[in-house]
Amino acid sequence: MVNDRNHEDSSVVEALDALFHPRAVAVVGASGRRGNPFSRPLEYLASFGYEGSVFPINPQYHELAGVTCYPDLGSVPEPVDLALMMVPAKAAVDLLPEVAAAGARAAVVFASGFGETGEDGELLQRELVETGRAHGVRLIGPNCQGVLSTTAKMYGTFTAALENGPISAGCLAYVGQSGAVGGSILSLANERGIGIASWVSTGNQADLNSVDVARYLIDESDTSALAMYIESATDELAFLDLARRAAELDKPLIVLRSAVSAAGARAAASHTGAIIGDSAAFDATVAEYGVIEARDIDELIDVAHAATALPSLRGRRLGIVTTSGGAGSLAADRADEVGLVVGEFTDPAQASLAELVPSFGAVENPVDVTAQIFRTGVSDDFIEVCHRVESLDEVDGVLIALTLVTGDFATRTAEALAVLAASSKKPVAIAWGASREQTEDARRHLREQGIPVYDSVGDACRALAALRRTPPRPAGVAVPEVPTDMRALIDGLDEFVTEAVGRKLLTWAGIPVPRARLVGDRAEAEKSADEFDGPVVLKIQSASVLHKSDLGGVVLGVAREAIADAAEELLERFADVQPEGVLIQQMAPEGLEFIVGVTTTAGGIALVTAGLGGTATEIFRDTATTFAPIDSQRARDLICGTRASALLTGFRGDEPYGLDALAELVSRVSRLAVAVGPRLRELEINPVRVTHDAEHPVLALDFLMRLTTKETN
Amino acid sequence: MVNDRNHEDSSVVEALDALFHPRAVAVVGASGRRGNPFSRPLEYLASFGYEGSVFPINPQYHELAGVTCYPDLGSVPEPVDLALMMVPAKAAVDLLPEVAAAGARAAVVFASGFGETGEDGELLQRELVETGRAHGVRLIGPNCQGVLSTTAKMYGTFTAALENGPISAGCLAYVGQSGAVGGSILSLANERGIGIASWVSTGNQADLNSVDVARYLIDESDTSALAMYIESATDELAFLDLARRAAELDKPLIVLRSAVSAAGARAAASHTGAIIGDSAAFDATVAEYGVIEARDIDELIDVAHAATALPSLRGRRLGIVTTSGGAGSLAADRADEVGLVVGEFTDPAQASLAELVPSFGAVENPVDVTAQIFRTGVSDDFIEVCHRVESLDEVDGVLIALTLVTGDFATRTAEALAVLAASSKKPVAIAWGASREQTEDARRHLREQGIPVYDSVGDACRALAALRRTPPRPAGVAVPEVPTDMRALIDGLDEFVTEAVGRKLLTWAGIPVPRARLVGDRAEAEKSADEFDGPVVLKIQSASVLHKSDLGGVVLGVAREAIADAAEELLERFADVQPEGVLIQQMAPEGLEFIVGVTTTAGGIALVTAGLGGTATEIFRDTATTFAPIDSQRARDLICGTRASALLTGFRGDEPYGLDALAELVSRVSRLAVAVGPRLRELEINPVRVTHDAEHPVLALDFLMRLTTKETN
Repeated sequence: MVNDRNHEDSSVVEALDALFHPRAVAVVGASGRRGNPFSRPLEYLASFGYEGSVFPINPQYHELAGVTCYPDLGSVPEPVDLALMMVPAKAAVDLLPEVAAAGARAAVVFASGFGETGEDGELLQRELVETGRAHGVRLIGPNCQGVLSTTAKMYGTFTAALENGPISAGCLAYVGQSGAVGGSILSLANERGIGIASWVSTGNQADLNSVDVARYLIDESDTSALAMYIESATDELAFLDLARRAAELDKPLIVLRSAVSAAGARAAASHTGAIIGDSAAFDATVAEYGVIEARDIDELIDVAHAATALPSLRGRRLGIVTTSGGAGSLAADRADEVGLVVGEFTDPAQASLAELVPSFGAVENPVDVTAQIFRTGVSDDFIEVCHRVESLDEVDGVLIALTLVTGDFATRTAEALAVLAASSKKPVAIAWGASREQTEDARRHLREQGIPVYDSVGDACRALAALRRTPPRPAGVAVPEVPTDMRALIDGLDEFVTEAVGRKLLTWAGIPVPRARLVGDRAEAEKSADEFDGPVVLKIQSASVLHKSDLGGVVLGVAREAIADAAEELLERFADVQPEGVLIQQMAPEGLEFIVGVTTTAGGIALVTAGLGGTATEIFRDTATTFAPIDSQRARDLICGTRASALLTGFRGDEPYGLDALAELVSRVSRLAVAVGPRLRELEINPVRVTHDAEHPVLALDFLMRLTTKETN
Repeated sequence: MVNDRNHEDSSVVEALDALFHPRAVAVVGASGRRGNPFSRPLEYLASFGYEGSVFPINPQYHELAGVTCYPDLGSVPEPVDLALMMVPAKAAVDLLPEVAAAGARAAVVFASGFGETGEDGELLQRELVETGRAHGVRLIGPNCQGVLSTTAKMYGTFTAALENGPISAGCLAYVGQSGAVGGSILSLANERGIGIASWVSTGNQADLNSVDVARYLIDESDTSALAMYIESATDELAFLDLARRAAELDKPLIVLRSAVSAAGARAAASHTGAIIGDSAAFDATVAEYGVIEARDIDELIDVAHAATALPSLRGRRLGIVTTSGGAGSLAADRADEVGLVVGEFTDPAQASLAELVPSFGAVENPVDVTAQIFRTGVSDDFIEVCHRVESLDEVDGVLIALTLVTGDFATRTAEALAVLAASSKKPVAIAWGASREQTEDARRHLREQGIPVYDSVGDACRALAALRRTPPRPAGVAVPEVPTDMRALIDGLDEFVTEAVGRKLLTWAGIPVPRARLVGDRAEAEKSADEFDGPVVLKIQSASVLHKSDLGGVVLGVAREAIADAAEELLERFADVQPEGVLIQQMAPEGLEFIVGVTTTAGGIALVTAGLGGTATEIFRDTATTFAPIDSQRARDLICGTRASALLTGFRGDEPYGLDALAELVSRVSRLAVAVGPRLRELEINPVRVTHDAEHPVLALDFLMRLTTKETN
């Protein structure tokens, strides 16, 4: 139920074209005070090589930063595409009609004093957006630090990251709300030699938001990787669309999220709903489309450097070459942690390396050439070892972990490694454990060649692991057509659905349930008792009683002859909630209990969750979640993604259980949920009994379904 | 059962005195070739200010590095304390008697060609150590990079980290096997401005090892924090002794371990033994004595910087001051992850901050002063905010997260923050997200003042969290005295102990067990049946059958009248293993199942483990482990350290269980294990049934005990 978002709002695309490719820019309220941050955009536009026209607007000047100044937008001699609004909040609102009249389709509003200051500011912010929309001007900001494009040499920002000159052009696009975090990233990226294509701070994002901008930039030919800083809850569908597009284009999407620890328990009737939490759609998107999550600014920089400078990692097998057994051993530990495999090399590979590596080194992987190889001056041997490891079929990527390789050796090594890294079809990452002072020339050379150098083997391993791309799964899982009678049943349902109705749905969807009968009174219970073998379970049925077990509404192990008494007692006990009746249900064979659920998120995305049931679900949170619907192969993968799946495959001498049957059930539940339609909030089978009984390998023992109320639909 | 290690081997202390405080040093085989790494120690000793005597030994020279050279050790005019052996492997062995005759109690052997090269090298290494011991010379190395002490200005090492001059003196001691990793650490520490007291690379550590050296250095007055790089399995008791001593002296001990991912499943009969794994003693030591684990070289440097420059963190409450809401939000997430608490400030605190923070900033914590506070030039307000946050009673430590604060503002800010950090009794950590280029003067100033600057909020939070000190728990848990008959019973036991014997031990130790009777045949079973109410469990009893359930040796829910038949059948089925009999045991009330075990590690340390039992134990590894014996308060903490403890305290409407009774049982098991004595390998109660029955809140349902075989004792 992942719907395509209609992203082709033409005014958004027009505005972003104007933002990133403007033929002429007006700087409204350009400041003449040197040192004032608001004087910077004009200075940057005037001196960093922007080739379009620049029109400063300020009635107090005839000229600013060497550029002719105009008293107002009406005086500008040619149409402008973009307005940079360096005026106070209220003035920005008032000037928007003139901005539109001057031809601009986009404006960047830098001023603060809007939504971030309270109620009055919020009103002003709404007026800003409405005025812009009414006049066909889409906005970045307010309360932002602006935008830059190195391709267009257009620097519409006052970020201090540019105070020493323009940054190096390259292929990394960056979008985020915070101008300060964005400025840090720009400053640090530039220091590392990461080339930037474009950079945007969206501030309060009253109109266009980070995801809108990112969705535009991911398609730009000068973007080969895109990094985002995301602060608040993001439109789930828009983010999903962005992630899918990035995966389609095979462009790494790197996301740094904050405010993750903020409380946000949401009301959910089902256990799975409570467990997956608020960011489930985001998490599922990240997992499904290979989004790279960075946990801090430095990690974002590390990963972005790899993503823009190195090829992707086609497999998990890492070859490590090091000048120190200790560093190699640490590198192997860190690689293992991020899911890379440091396997022993084959005999021929080891023999080939043994021609070059000293006898007291190691050739099996990590390859330890020892510091001796440098002491004796034969550093060419070291480079040859790196080349041989890189060329091995059994290696998908290479980590070169240097310790105190310094001075001239360092420079020669850097030169040779730069050639290797630039020519390889596999990622070659360098970690260098020596002070900058002792490796200055070497680091400068690598920086100039665009080759990343990591400060630790851990940083390098995380960056390498982020280069791993897996093709997205093919879409297109068939959802069953709902027959007319079933449709009528569903459409007639209220918010909560009783188990008896649920059983009809499950049976229709081909989900096995135990034999059962709903009885309304003692007499009916007495009559039905003969239909069952051995002990049964009795369950009160009422739309008001959700968690029956917790309220004593479930009686287990009732012998056939005691059914009538027990049913009567239950009906009496729950008389207050006007029960529909008591469900008599055949006791299921012993086995494991799983939980399977589908939850529709606030953004309207259906997610299916599976995991071990019972107390384990809540204590250990050992569940796996993805987008519904899924086929049985994907359901199998989902189940196998939980630790508890070990219990299914013959744990400690137990017979294996029917993993295929459980996968089929999970798939059917996911497809049923989607078939129910957009009113579905939650559907949960808890527990699913998984048994050794070949005839009933899985049974849905309990059922919960919640829809939107009919009124709100 | 944590024994004190007799560390006071006088030859070790004498040797380490000679190593770190030598009055005279001989450089045996000093090289005259400039550029040869082996020429460095003499150059360093000659030019970095060592005040003792230096005697280069090399028959080819009359003088080296401006120092008189001697043809052999016999010609040296005064006694030497330390010999730096810059000669090939074989020569090092041959020269040791002369070294001893010259008065040296310690020698550093730099040469490779020993144990690391194979069998011949191992033989030579053994000869080296034996010769040294025979002549009273203790050794560092071989295959090492040596030792330095900035206090003594004694640089007995050829590490390239010194090629630009001596490093800054300070209070960090470092010990590790790998000279290359050690060199990286030295180079990076020096770049950061972390002062070093002493540094040792122990190489093959054929004689003195890293822990021996660290144990000496932790007592040195110039050591205020000690960092180690540990590669291979370490003597558990020696490491425990070191950690305990560091805690006693309140000196942070920072450990970077590698080769953690190496396979190492050890043979254990008990589940708890298999679960806790090979590094359990190390892990328990780390947890109990507040050892700080670093995961990479850069993290070790980050933490060491904090540990040497900042006071400890007395509580968990962190105040964050930032120039960016985004950076503050990221910092709060990272702080939360490492167990720090970023709580909202009280109203008076917020009111005081609101006098200085702009209205569009935030005063609740994180305090966002916004970049505006710098733009308008009033950076003094920012410093005042930092001071006010630092002085709050509700704050134990401060994180100052700067984004693009650059140029002159940066320098003024750095100067003021250096004063704050140096004068505070709380740790004040600075994270700065701006390139070095844009903050050069500011960073230089902080470096000179010894104040750490972190590259990211995550790095700063990890370093702050490492400053948290908790006082070690008081020792002295009473172990029950074993009465003579019980002692005789224990001493007579074989490797594996049957349940029936185990029941005697448990009963003596006051650990509740269900009513039970051991019967040898059908007739005895028939006679005993009347002693039980309701259904019973039958269990085969044989020292050869460890995991009875897995082998079908346990029959549950046997009705009284079926006991005789079932017992007979079990005895027949297991006739091959000559069972002692069948244990008839009262069925325990329903409840939760826990697992409690004590394992003696390879190093002879008894560890007690508790956790949820059943499949959860192995799938989720939700157990907690510490040193045995423990009292019931500690046992309670241990249980509460598992996630499953949530089940005990009234989970999802369930009645709470008897946590106190379980804690008492765990304590008794731990004390029983220690009382059994050094032959104990494993003792496990699995399961412990925890019930709602006030009379039997806990019951030990099954028992496993393994001792060393009597032969090996």
